Amino acid sequence: MESIDKINGTFGKRQLEQKTTVPSAVIRRLPRYHRCLGDLLRMDKLRISSAELADIMDVTASQIRQDLNCFGGFGQQGYGYNVKFLYNKISELLGVNEGFNAVIIGAGKLGRALAATHMFERRGVNRLAMFDTDPTIIGTSIYDVPVYSVDELHSFCKEHNVHIGVLTVPKEAAYEVASTIVDAGVKGIWNFANMELKLDNPDVVVENIHLGDSLMALCFEIKTSNEKRQNNE
Amino acid sequence: MESIDKINGTFGKRQLEQKTTVPSAVIRRLPRYHRCLGDLLRMDKLRISSAELADIMDVTASQIRQDLNCFGGFGQQGYGYNVKFLYNKISELLGVNEGFNAVIIGAGKLGRALAATHMFERRGVNRLAMFDTDPTIIGTSIYDVPVYSVDELHSFCKEHNVHIGVLTVPKEAAYEVASTIVDAGVKGIWNFANMELKLDNPDVVVENIHLGDSLMALCFEIKTSNEKRQNNE
Repeated sequence: MESIDKINGTFGKRQLEQKTTVPSAVIRRLPRYHRCLGDLLRMDKLRISSAELADIMDVTASQIRQDLNCFGGFGQQGYGYNVKFLYNKISELLGVNEGFNAVIIGAGKLGRALAATHMFERRGVNRLAMFDTDPTIIGTSIYDVPVYSVDELHSFCKEHNVHIGVLTVPKEAAYEVASTIVDAGVKGIWNFANMELKLDNPDVVVENIHLGDSLMALCFEIKTSNEKRQNNE
Repeated sequence: MESIDKINGTFGKRQLEQKTTVPSAVIRRLPRYHRCLGDLLRMDKLRISSAELADIMDVTASQIRQDLNCFGGFGQQGYGYNVKFLYNKISELLGVNEGFNAVIIGAGKLGRALAATHMFERRGVNRLAMFDTDPTIIGTSIYDVPVYSVDELHSFCKEHNVHIGVLTVPKEAAYEVASTIVDAGVKGIWNFANMELKLDNPDVVVENIHLGDSLMALCFEIKTSNEKRQNNE
């Protein structure tokens, strides 16, 4: 299924190129498996049948079995899957336990909202710092994340081996910030600046997030659904 | 190109089903055209050539011409496209000017960050109110958006003809809130509750947003890219 504007598009393309024993279509479903299995773990569920997992994932049980067989088939007939084992295996495939370090550039409303979530730690990503230009917040901590001046961005990234830069800056500042952090060794950019960030560097991956496009998709769907309903009346 | 976890998946599916003279692949690119043209409008750009637009959109000029021909071909040889006309036409196709009303349920960090953006007004969506359970903020306004008690959610949605509910509530509360607003006539749900919201109502469309999946995709890409680099060394 295609996304409107490749919110996760680069992922799809990249992994088609990589050589792996796990088919690309399965890899694509992994974050969702990871999420479901994480929920089950938090509910202290130790084992799950393919039928139960299929119900949660909204796919068929045979699809589940086929997918999970790609990693060696951890299920046992009549006994189900070991939730923790599967979760760890998928985490490993996805790079969840690589210990990536991240910084958030832009301590505005969205930057703070992202800093406040458990999203990073749940995926094994260390949220080291936020960076801003506002002197009234530089030197403080927001949700336990220290805020530094953007002047320190380059040296901080270099010194702390930062892998991921989360961009919540105004779109006008995006390229300058991206160039600074890439120069300091950052390998991945999670871009919320609401513009298409294109870097001429094959070693740096970019995830452009366009929440507005998703809102627009929703409007389009409601409009289409309304029209369909009216035509049927 | 496929998304990992159909962040915008339902859009893709829905519009394949609809009968329209504009091919589905073109429709999928519309939010991005809309975004680029909006940027150009704000820069007071009146006309643009297919070559310039292609450069911004990162597609070929022939793709641009082919796409825009679907709406009747508004370009003139050697003269380019009328930016405002194209913008309005695409807005209309996407349902941007339908005057949809939205409420945000959950006035936490993410809810507030969303309320603070220009995302809604830019897409012609009226952000009427926020709802929360916290008595210390009920009755106040946050970024000019009034905060009401969730107890008033049903009656408010009914009274104000609310089309869109933005869910930024804890995942445990998502189904109850969804059921309340759907019962009050809401036709679209923008779900940030980080769970797969499945409703047995063909008249209600749901956009499930999983930012964490996107972060995970980024981690996977960085890992894959690192491995590729190491193999080449």
